Amino acid sequence: MNYKFSDKVTGLQASAIREILKFTALPDVISFAAGNPAPEAFPSEQIAEISRKIMTENPIAALQYSISEGYPKLRETLKKRLIAQGVMNPEKDDLIITSGGQQAAELSCKVMLNEHDTLICEAPSFTGCLTSFKSYNVNLVGVPLLDDGMDIEKLKDTLKSANSPKLIYVIPNFQNPTGICTSEEKRRKILDLAKRFDCMILEDNPYGDIRFSGETIPSVKSFDDGENVIYAGSFSKVIAPGLRVGYVCAPKEVISKITVCKQVSDVHTNIFAQMICDEFVNNYDFEGHLKKIREIYRKKCSLMIEELEKNVPDSVKFTHPEGGLFLWGTLPDGVDMKGFCKAAVEKKVAVVPGVAFMTSETLPTQSFRLNFSTPRDEQIIKGCKILGDVSREFIR
Amino acid sequence: MNYKFSDKVTGLQASAIREILKFTALPDVISFAAGNPAPEAFPSEQIAEISRKIMTENPIAALQYSISEGYPKLRETLKKRLIAQGVMNPEKDDLIITSGGQQAAELSCKVMLNEHDTLICEAPSFTGCLTSFKSYNVNLVGVPLLDDGMDIEKLKDTLKSANSPKLIYVIPNFQNPTGICTSEEKRRKILDLAKRFDCMILEDNPYGDIRFSGETIPSVKSFDDGENVIYAGSFSKVIAPGLRVGYVCAPKEVISKITVCKQVSDVHTNIFAQMICDEFVNNYDFEGHLKKIREIYRKKCSLMIEELEKNVPDSVKFTHPEGGLFLWGTLPDGVDMKGFCKAAVEKKVAVVPGVAFMTSETLPTQSFRLNFSTPRDEQIIKGCKILGDVSREFIR
Repeated sequence: MNYKFSDKVTGLQASAIREILKFTALPDVISFAAGNPAPEAFPSEQIAEISRKIMTENPIAALQYSISEGYPKLRETLKKRLIAQGVMNPEKDDLIITSGGQQAAELSCKVMLNEHDTLICEAPSFTGCLTSFKSYNVNLVGVPLLDDGMDIEKLKDTLKSANSPKLIYVIPNFQNPTGICTSEEKRRKILDLAKRFDCMILEDNPYGDIRFSGETIPSVKSFDDGENVIYAGSFSKVIAPGLRVGYVCAPKEVISKITVCKQVSDVHTNIFAQMICDEFVNNYDFEGHLKKIREIYRKKCSLMIEELEKNVPDSVKFTHPEGGLFLWGTLPDGVDMKGFCKAAVEKKVAVVPGVAFMTSETLPTQSFRLNFSTPRDEQIIKGCKILGDVSREFIR
Repeated sequence: MNYKFSDKVTGLQASAIREILKFTALPDVISFAAGNPAPEAFPSEQIAEISRKIMTENPIAALQYSISEGYPKLRETLKKRLIAQGVMNPEKDDLIITSGGQQAAELSCKVMLNEHDTLICEAPSFTGCLTSFKSYNVNLVGVPLLDDGMDIEKLKDTLKSANSPKLIYVIPNFQNPTGICTSEEKRRKILDLAKRFDCMILEDNPYGDIRFSGETIPSVKSFDDGENVIYAGSFSKVIAPGLRVGYVCAPKEVISKITVCKQVSDVHTNIFAQMICDEFVNNYDFEGHLKKIREIYRKKCSLMIEELEKNVPDSVKFTHPEGGLFLWGTLPDGVDMKGFCKAAVEKKVAVVPGVAFMTSETLPTQSFRLNFSTPRDEQIIKGCKILGDVSREFIR
């Protein structure tokens, strides 16, 4: 049968990362391509203990239907945290639990944008969310990301020229794929521009709690008066991604629309997982756990940077992230980036070609993404040596 | 701020059930309004045991990111079952795990329909899915449901007159809200018509395993050659809804599109929950468990019908379901149905007004939905007495 799919999905493709990940399933490939937290960063024993407790004391609550807004205790826990951080405005905002941060972004797009409406994102940006936006057939416009956040002049130009953009999507902390942090100054400027052009901001912050050096920068939402910013967070990187628990904090009217869409999408997020997260944050040493995983990632990131500097020619530039899971390499102009990535995977090191993170895979980029959270130390050392060899082959 | 929401969600409202459920939160209200499985139908002890086992033997697999298609072992388990039932065509079909049956319906709509495309459903039908379809701004057309399934002549007329309908949504087993089963003859006819008009069918079967009397009727999909039917199933009614594990079996091309949309919606379904379902189906007495819950629901359904017959005037008609969780009451013409439901909830019995299940809440209906799975036996007895009193007030 010749299926007539919707226009929304006709051109939609599985992400380039997904394709690369197929290679990483081969046992002898060192993967710098995934975005998985380190297995040793999971509080497995605590989750095992909590699971036992819930299933002994309160199994029916964990197994029965629940409300779309989420497990009431977890919502209260998160509200308290976000109010303390200045993210949530208790007068104007509300909060809903989502099935991971990905669903937060998807539902934000669904409620705010019609087909062909413009959504502005950083270029490059997180491929999962870009594809999610594309699945609503919106007009995706990328604004170049500089070392300290979006190019503000270009953002202004885009806001002026595009047909009334509805949403600006930013990942201000340790951005995926670059590891870049948006400066406080730029956070304020992006918010000012959004307000001037009557546009919403989707601030995606899955990595904010994994800062392992430098000073915390307040969120974009904390500078807002509770009107223009939708803030998305997640337990995927700080507890466990398999649980699929994230959240959105936004003005009440927006949360109300997101709630209806959430209800008709998956009714509610797995309630057992929500109870596990709540119990872990409240009754275990969550801050101590965060300290521990920051230290794991600080070490892994340092090791990768050290090994890259030792092995790879200076003309290949790398970001030096202060947190998160990723760093971003850029080859000199004229070097064949896709060829480089292909040669690397043939030599058993998988990295993600930068095109995967552009609004269109036909846009030019010399960059590629490296993940330091998944590989073991010896894999980081071996993989960087191989990347050094491949680099020297391509840069003559 | 005056938010400009997308056209898709501007008119979207929380379901009428949801509003009714607010009353049911009051401690002294007897709820015939929910659709929750009976708490005693959950295999709580087994799930507790399985959770312990997974968290002891394989915690990282349960906590790490997984693939969008779902936990490979659970997919194999389901494929085997569906092939054995004649549902899955092993040559042409594939299967993906979803976050409950609701997501199966949502993603099917998203991949198949553009805005304003026509989707045909039974009238009445399950409000959660109808709202999900509305959230994609499709043109929803209801075809009256008779005692043995859709009115086939009206379905044919609709297929002819509507602007090339893309999808026919049916719940052939113990339909929500009516409890009606579509006859084998009609299942075949609906499939023939879909093929003749080059239209897909979404067969939603969350209740199929809860047949407590009568003979099993093969699924619509089992009559198909693997081309026109998308089949959705769920563990919500047979294991536990809080886990949010469902599945879709459909032609490979369709599953491939659904997979991309699933990936950008919530990446994958909670993996711990998928492992729990797989373990329970394979290594516990799943068939024995099904027998047990069928018996629970058979008794509850019989009790409710008995008590309604005893207390409510004969002029109020009720369906006599052979499975599922619901039955459908219809007041005589001229009686104020909404007033009846309001009076009932004021007397502390919540039922759902039939308008909630129509394609538009302005369409006329004399009916209301009763759920027999959630209330305890003494609540069924007391609630039916009250419904008797309210009926006599309204029918003079």
